[in-house]
Amino acid sequence: MGNTIGKIFKLTTFGESHGKAIGGIIDGCPAGLKVDFDLIQAQLDKRKPGQSEITTQRKESDTVEFLSGIFEGKTTGTPIGFIIKNEDAKSKDYSHIKEVYRPSHADFTYQEKYGIRDYRGGGRSSARETACRVVAGAVAQQLLQRIGVKIAAYVSAVASMRIKKSYKDLDLSLIDSNIVRCPDTEIANKMIVEIQKIQKDGDTIGGEITALATGVPVGWGEPVFDKLHADLGKVMLSINAVHGFKYGFERIDISSSKGSEVNDIIIDSNGTTKTNFSGGIQGGISNGNDIYCEVAFKPVATLMQKQNTIDAAGNKVEIKGKGRHDACVVPRAVPIVESMMALTLVDHYLRSRVNKI
Amino acid sequence: MGNTIGKIFKLTTFGESHGKAIGGIIDGCPAGLKVDFDLIQAQLDKRKPGQSEITTQRKESDTVEFLSGIFEGKTTGTPIGFIIKNEDAKSKDYSHIKEVYRPSHADFTYQEKYGIRDYRGGGRSSARETACRVVAGAVAQQLLQRIGVKIAAYVSAVASMRIKKSYKDLDLSLIDSNIVRCPDTEIANKMIVEIQKIQKDGDTIGGEITALATGVPVGWGEPVFDKLHADLGKVMLSINAVHGFKYGFERIDISSSKGSEVNDIIIDSNGTTKTNFSGGIQGGISNGNDIYCEVAFKPVATLMQKQNTIDAAGNKVEIKGKGRHDACVVPRAVPIVESMMALTLVDHYLRSRVNKI
Amino acid sequence: MGNTIGKIFKLTTFGESHGKAIGGIIDGCPAGLKVDFDLIQAQLDKRKPGQSEITTQRKESDTVEFLSGIFEGKTTGTPIGFIIKNEDAKSKDYSHIKEVYRPSHADFTYQEKYGIRDYRGGGRSSARETACRVVAGAVAQQLLQRIGVKIAAYVSAVASMRIKKSYKDLDLSLIDSNIVRCPDTEIANKMIVEIQKIQKDGDTIGGEITALATGVPVGWGEPVFDKLHADLGKVMLSINAVHGFKYGFERIDISSSKGSEVNDIIIDSNGTTKTNFSGGIQGGISNGNDIYCEVAFKPVATLMQKQNTIDAAGNKVEIKGKGRHDACVVPRAVPIVESMMALTLVDHYLRSRVNKI
Amino acid sequence: MGNTIGKIFKLTTFGESHGKAIGGIIDGCPAGLKVDFDLIQAQLDKRKPGQSEITTQRKESDTVEFLSGIFEGKTTGTPIGFIIKNEDAKSKDYSHIKEVYRPSHADFTYQEKYGIRDYRGGGRSSARETACRVVAGAVAQQLLQRIGVKIAAYVSAVASMRIKKSYKDLDLSLIDSNIVRCPDTEIANKMIVEIQKIQKDGDTIGGEITALATGVPVGWGEPVFDKLHADLGKVMLSINAVHGFKYGFERIDISSSKGSEVNDIIIDSNGTTKTNFSGGIQGGISNGNDIYCEVAFKPVATLMQKQNTIDAAGNKVEIKGKGRHDACVVPRAVPIVESMMALTLVDHYLRSRVNKI
Repeated sequence: MGNTIGKIFKLTTFGESHGKAIGGIIDGCPAGLKVDFDLIQAQLDKRKPGQSEITTQRKESDTVEFLSGIFEGKTTGTPIGFIIKNEDAKSKDYSHIKEVYRPSHADFTYQEKYGIRDYRGGGRSSARETACRVVAGAVAQQLLQRIGVKIAAYVSAVASMRIKKSYKDLDLSLIDSNIVRCPDTEIANKMIVEIQKIQKDGDTIGGEITALATGVPVGWGEPVFDKLHADLGKVMLSINAVHGFKYGFERIDISSSKGSEVNDIIIDSNGTTKTNFSGGIQGGISNGNDIYCEVAFKPVATLMQKQNTIDAAGNKVEIKGKGRHDACVVPRAVPIVESMMALTLVDHYLRSRVNKI
Repeated sequence: MGNTIGKIFKLTTFGESHGKAIGGIIDGCPAGLKVDFDLIQAQLDKRKPGQSEITTQRKESDTVEFLSGIFEGKTTGTPIGFIIKNEDAKSKDYSHIKEVYRPSHADFTYQEKYGIRDYRGGGRSSARETACRVVAGAVAQQLLQRIGVKIAAYVSAVASMRIKKSYKDLDLSLIDSNIVRCPDTEIANKMIVEIQKIQKDGDTIGGEITALATGVPVGWGEPVFDKLHADLGKVMLSINAVHGFKYGFERIDISSSKGSEVNDIIIDSNGTTKTNFSGGIQGGISNGNDIYCEVAFKPVATLMQKQNTIDAAGNKVEIKGKGRHDACVVPRAVPIVESMMALTLVDHYLRSRVNKI
Repeated sequence: MGNTIGKIFKLTTFGESHGKAIGGIIDGCPAGLKVDFDLIQAQLDKRKPGQSEITTQRKESDTVEFLSGIFEGKTTGTPIGFIIKNEDAKSKDYSHIKEVYRPSHADFTYQEKYGIRDYRGGGRSSARETACRVVAGAVAQQLLQRIGVKIAAYVSAVASMRIKKSYKDLDLSLIDSNIVRCPDTEIANKMIVEIQKIQKDGDTIGGEITALATGVPVGWGEPVFDKLHADLGKVMLSINAVHGFKYGFERIDISSSKGSEVNDIIIDSNGTTKTNFSGGIQGGISNGNDIYCEVAFKPVATLMQKQNTIDAAGNKVEIKGKGRHDACVVPRAVPIVESMMALTLVDHYLRSRVNKI
Repeated sequence: MGNTIGKIFKLTTFGESHGKAIGGIIDGCPAGLKVDFDLIQAQLDKRKPGQSEITTQRKESDTVEFLSGIFEGKTTGTPIGFIIKNEDAKSKDYSHIKEVYRPSHADFTYQEKYGIRDYRGGGRSSARETACRVVAGAVAQQLLQRIGVKIAAYVSAVASMRIKKSYKDLDLSLIDSNIVRCPDTEIANKMIVEIQKIQKDGDTIGGEITALATGVPVGWGEPVFDKLHADLGKVMLSINAVHGFKYGFERIDISSSKGSEVNDIIIDSNGTTKTNFSGGIQGGISNGNDIYCEVAFKPVATLMQKQNTIDAAGNKVEIKGKGRHDACVVPRAVPIVESMMALTLVDHYLRSRVNKI
């Protein structure tokens, strides 16, 4: 259970890190969309391992193969099935964790929950699953682009390095100009140095991604449980390693704000507001202004250091990561965050089509 | 759409702030639970208006009437229908906002989305709806108590006043000893003074609630989208005025943490961890340790000050709140946060019953 | 669980036969529909007990009270909550079945499933619940009428008396001209005589209702599980006492048909077919022709005769119905069948709005 | 939309008749089931084309490839992804129907609904999709077998040839002893002769399948919309070519039955009934007796005869089937019916686990 997201535009994923393949089914994609396969692959490439010196060196081409739902280049309204084969699934690398529960990993919880687990590379709990989200998210982005909605995400913090500027004052075309995906190039350079230092220590570090959607019309989001930001929060928190979510209140603290300071004054009949502390959403419904949120990632749990833990028999043991892992996950998580935002927005776009008679 | 939460233990709510009644249906509550009606009313009383000098003075007894699903004091497995009548629905108080969009309220978005809205008291967008959540949450809490799960929430920040201690070092029996529901009585007093000052200024202020569940066994939560914390995040963000959610990482920053500092070392075969930065959840599944999270509320949007805005015709107008509103919403939101946590946990408790053959 | 129907236009019902009230929530009704309350009450009146000499004499005004979701006569897009109070809930009438399992009733199955049941009048298993379906169905019918879809149902068989004519050759304005709701008045009279005879014997008899929808455009219904006729079949079978469902193949046997005889030849670009054995649906999707189906009801299980059964302790006992029950359920079931058809069609109408980009 | 079935044990399928592959995802299968792959393949073989002289000669090995969710032979609780490659997808065979709407096929409705369709072999509307249901159904059957539930289906009617005996008086081990899958071998022989005659005429013929489940405990099925038989009805009606569904009332007419004749007298505290007209279900909940139902299939729409129709431009044209098609679909539909019954039962089995505290 729990492997489906969306009410109308639904994504269901399957697959373990070291099984034959991962994949998914998109059900509810409207018919008639001309699919840009290059855009999908480009998003996958931003997520894939081995893309730069600061990411894990697992070798995966991450080529998606579409099996259904697209005919002569267009969506047909029927479910879009797709798979991505696992090529560099070095299962032997993981035999050492077969009987050991890695700290702050899901080994113990999966084992206890199910009584069995595919321990290879974390199995289902591996972030490898997110490649499927990127495929579906890239399809969703194309639907959104047709109606003028654009999505962008970027790294806004790594360790104590944090972008000070508003998203409005950044040149977002620079996001992919550096390997850490931070559009403030000065800070980007510092982040890269920091990640490399952490990596050399065999340690890992957290970070934050800011996501932005422009061009969203008024009226997306549903009262009362499926508020647009509640659904955004859920999907972001469903990404591996995410521990925090905040929307609106850019660079200011929520709890200590005063109403007189953060109320957004409406200045025209399009709903344009003077400020945008609301993050483009009021009462759970988009208000026509930019939608933005911040997603906080904890440091990767796999360390290249010795750590204490227990094994399946309850014995105290030491463990140390093998191979090369990401020291900081946020650069590769940018397309994932974009995808989750796109999936949520497209679902609410379709839901908004049935609001009125 | 969007008025139902839960997959097995489902709550659907209805009702506007100034309609005849609000209410809901709980579907999926297991049969055989002896219902403690006093506990339900006690939770409603913590949420209800007019309970202290720092809350709105609307008069509502908030008495819940159960219409079905309970027989001779026990749940029967059939849907539990309930209503709460709106008694002090002074619709005339709201005629002045019929044609005006209040800043940072949902007036504009509802009107644009639906082409019609019940403007009285915010209609469906009013936090009055949360009374229904408290009813269902109190039923959920009783199911959880049977198996040893306890839930508590408290105000951990108002304005710049913030509890410094860990939840472990607080005496939670003091939560209801003061009107701001902060178990650190020294800080509580400061919070009250601050809220009264803000109130006198006709302004409002944000705050934060910390929620805690103890006794949750290993194995609740589903990969990959319905991770326990993702569902918790969604329900918390669905509460009126909530803008931020964080789980684990108590009193420390997520983004700047190092793996070597925050990895939770497992120390016994029950999964007990030395530290609990994970917030009791790993890979989206409860790991047997305490589950805790922080929920950040923006300041109430209704001010007792003049604000600029536009009316339905697009003219610039001034608006000022009438009557008495909450200057800070967190004291009354404590039972709501508890309820949302209980609803999420009970749903995953029931879902966990079908994990294994 | 199981008390909700629909994917977009959703109805959730609650209530037991002899509880305080029954009711429901319609979530997903588009905003802006001017509600005709008289039409709703008229449908309820067709279903209500005591309407003629051939129905049960329970006294219920069956007045629906709307609590939310309608403002100044129009739907607002928020959930429509409603209740119908149980007025003539004579619980004492049912004390004799507290410990006895009536044959072919749900007493035994509810007791075993839940370990507890509201035995009064069958509790949740009573057909009284269907009044809530009629309320929602009447709202759905109004949405459909706006776009030219009309629904009608009539009694096509009671005992061995069966309408021989096609629905096309009947004057459907005569349906309500007689108390059995059969538009072939000659056969209607025979049916009434038969029901009265059965009633005098303390026995009961089965029957059949034919349902018809005209004006449904091409394109409603979803592959592959939510085929329009599959959803119609489910909702019809969910009505108390229904045991059979057939769509298309009017008055002819399905199994013994030849393709050359029953294939529907398309004769114009609107999809009009020469014959309509398909019942207006091909591949689960409406094809623009009339949609029709037949719904078969078993005889009411409560007899005014002595029957053998067992009690809760396993002892063999005799039981005999008290008061006056329906000897044949189909006359009162006509508005229920219409409602279930309307609910299904309106849900697929809304779903069809998101089929294409 | 509409490509998922089940609430807990969920199957989502994808794939077109002549795409690269068909496949599906089973989400919600409990962990720990040892999978018998031979049983799955055996069920697929009963459904696959080219198995006998009375079926279509399309060549498909119909080999299922599992991609996830099974580890070292056991289910892990994570989603089970699988594909079946389309091997004999002779797309050229279908170029003649690119612009033509075949009578009583879904060509016209898909084209109108979506504005585009994969016309090759009927695309998504092809019964080829049901192979995925058989895979999932065979997994479901294994879960049911563990707790003593057995499922069997057989052909009970073809043309006017109909089994007269009750399922209780048949030797079900003979079902697969003949190519028509009718356990009454005398009637089976007549059916085969009839089908061959029909086939020679280039015509097609309808039929009926009876499905049976033994060993189902009391308590499966949910009030009020998800009654066990309502869900069974839906899934059966979702199978290509099914037009009718009936449960209980074996070999007798529903509408003309009297209560005194068909009420099932309970004779012991296990709920055993003297007769079983209820078909093992009362009030939508299993009562511990055998569950059985009848599923009526229309004749295959593709004829090896000339038929009139229109093309996409609205011109009248003639069409005639090419290649070899099934003259009667029921022999190959037996494993499909079994699978749909298993999927429904296993879903309600899991749902029944959360009925009580």
